[in-house]
Amino acid sequence: MKLVCNQSDLSTNLSLTSRAVPSRPTHPVLANVLLQADAETNQVSLTAFDLSLGIRTSFSAEVTVGGAIALPAKLLNDITSRLSEGEITLEDEPVNPASGEGLIVTLTPASGRYQVRAMGAEEFPELPVIENAQALHLPVAGLIEGLRGTLFATSADETKQVLTGVHLKFLQDGLEFAATDGHRLAVVETINENPKDNFETELEVTVPNKALRELERILAHNLSSEEPVALYVDQGQVIFEWQNQRLTSRTLDGQYPAYRQLIPRQFEREVTLDRRQFLNSLERIAVFSDQKNNIVKINIDSGMGEITLSVEAQDVGSGKESMEAQISGEDIVIAFNVKYLLEGLKALPGSEIVMQLNQALTPVIFTPLSGVKMTYLAMPVQLRS
Amino acid sequence: MKLVCNQSDLSTNLSLTSRAVPSRPTHPVLANVLLQADAETNQVSLTAFDLSLGIRTSFSAEVTVGGAIALPAKLLNDITSRLSEGEITLEDEPVNPASGEGLIVTLTPASGRYQVRAMGAEEFPELPVIENAQALHLPVAGLIEGLRGTLFATSADETKQVLTGVHLKFLQDGLEFAATDGHRLAVVETINENPKDNFETELEVTVPNKALRELERILAHNLSSEEPVALYVDQGQVIFEWQNQRLTSRTLDGQYPAYRQLIPRQFEREVTLDRRQFLNSLERIAVFSDQKNNIVKINIDSGMGEITLSVEAQDVGSGKESMEAQISGEDIVIAFNVKYLLEGLKALPGSEIVMQLNQALTPVIFTPLSGVKMTYLAMPVQLRS
Repeated sequence: MKLVCNQSDLSTNLSLTSRAVPSRPTHPVLANVLLQADAETNQVSLTAFDLSLGIRTSFSAEVTVGGAIALPAKLLNDITSRLSEGEITLEDEPVNPASGEGLIVTLTPASGRYQVRAMGAEEFPELPVIENAQALHLPVAGLIEGLRGTLFATSADETKQVLTGVHLKFLQDGLEFAATDGHRLAVVETINENPKDNFETELEVTVPNKALRELERILAHNLSSEEPVALYVDQGQVIFEWQNQRLTSRTLDGQYPAYRQLIPRQFEREVTLDRRQFLNSLERIAVFSDQKNNIVKINIDSGMGEITLSVEAQDVGSGKESMEAQISGEDIVIAFNVKYLLEGLKALPGSEIVMQLNQALTPVIFTPLSGVKMTYLAMPVQLRS
Repeated sequence: MKLVCNQSDLSTNLSLTSRAVPSRPTHPVLANVLLQADAETNQVSLTAFDLSLGIRTSFSAEVTVGGAIALPAKLLNDITSRLSEGEITLEDEPVNPASGEGLIVTLTPASGRYQVRAMGAEEFPELPVIENAQALHLPVAGLIEGLRGTLFATSADETKQVLTGVHLKFLQDGLEFAATDGHRLAVVETINENPKDNFETELEVTVPNKALRELERILAHNLSSEEPVALYVDQGQVIFEWQNQRLTSRTLDGQYPAYRQLIPRQFEREVTLDRRQFLNSLERIAVFSDQKNNIVKINIDSGMGEITLSVEAQDVGSGKESMEAQISGEDIVIAFNVKYLLEGLKALPGSEIVMQLNQALTPVIFTPLSGVKMTYLAMPVQLRS
């Protein structure tokens, strides 16, 4: 194998794929990135795969001799990212030409010369492929919206199985994202702007939050892209594909909770609020909740047209803030775990939000007044008297 | 006590002093900041003191009723920093007016109301004062120069006593800073631009690196200040004072090493280099030193007019880079622990540096070609053959 590429292409793509390199590989080859160079197309692809999450990217280079090799991902990334802009030559050769044992790759930038021990490409596991599957095409912005609105609500507890993922439901006219950790629920509906996709509806799949966090991170750099992301689903696998990049992930087994049933359809009370103001007040009030208490009390006063947030932390102090709100329904006092309220308010888009509720201990729904179709459900807690 | 102040004044000064609040206080009162309000001068001062490092700052406010009180530093800082710009009223009152037991302070910003449990000012330890001591006046820029050039070379090992501090030596015409951890040595000489200071020469003191890091951090915000920093020294204490701020620190006991003796006076070889280029090459080469080896080899070749840096990491790979240099003296190969070389090169000011040496295992000196008077000494290591 021999090729000449740009430092910035190699460095950017290495740092992209490196996110799928496990920090503690179960097998030595998984600490590597697979480099494949095609002399006919002059394309170089890089692949990293931790057996659950896989990332493949490709870029143009001058490939003199095609070939494939597995290179230590961290070391190569650390060197390449520190090199200055310019051309780099990569070439492999046996460590011991006589016996043909071992492999070494030589990197030659403008100044200097680096040699790195490599492994044979045949040791690197195959990235899953989905054959003959149909793709759903999703606009980048919509996909990011769905991920931002749900990822935060997944469970961080690995024993919680399906709850550590985001549940994707394919609808005739779009894709629905849902996440819950058992304490709260976030649902985002996005529209598929490409109605030509003749997709099998009611297909559902749960994808690990780790893979989707990487997807969100990578796509955030492609926000301006007009090209949609193609999504393929098969037994146990999903593949997201766009431009020169591909992300694959295993899916999570098990029945996802029937979350739609949790969302009340009718409400006795409705409060319209400025989201930023509500969030800022909560963040100040939450300072006390670092202490011995994580409960914030919300007093909804329709007569005054305001809500009052308060926290009492025994032996420490207390805080109280009021803000204007449009209120319909009777006065009520309701309490939440401040963490769940804060995280939901941060993820909700838009400047104004609507809070809908029935009684002090029934589910409360937060939605943006307009724009993205997102629903955040938080369970109130019992107030200690 | 009752006062009205600006949110930004209170917040800025709280975050400044909070650095002297211990994260694990040995006595509850040390987790507090002492607030003193003077109704005559309309000045508020804040003091934090961990019994070694003390920081006091003051600012203007409208003080209706003077007084002093100890307030929980972290809680107050967390609330105040989240409040929006505007006036805040602070007022104290007994928790239980009948018995006079306990204290509570009420913060009233534009919206909301916060109450915080406080302690009596009389429980807060006195900040050390130095009476009748003469001050040495130092320009802010020079002080920062001295600290940046030496702090990195102090020892992080608490058992190393005096080596965990920077040694300050008062000379007739300036101040000399020195730091060594036993492996390398950094010395910076600064000029006292105020020759009117009739200071007792040959006074020496070693100040803990923790206190000086805070001093550097605070002064970096005052870089444009024309007003010099006054430095007072007394038995076991130093005080730095400028504008409305004061930092006090205990000093470190024990004889500081006679470091001047370590610096050779004559050299057989001299190499002049571009500092940034040398540093960048080393940083790339150092990638291999994360692995099994931390030794970088430097080949000085006067015939070619270049130096070559190289690292070999067994079973991992190797790196090599060459760069131009002005060389006088015979060719030599010399090796260093890459960490000590990197840290020194980062701290050295200026674009060009001079490396002076005698033999492969005698001390090597790095100095800027011009500007600040800094000397960095690194001990070479034996090359494994």
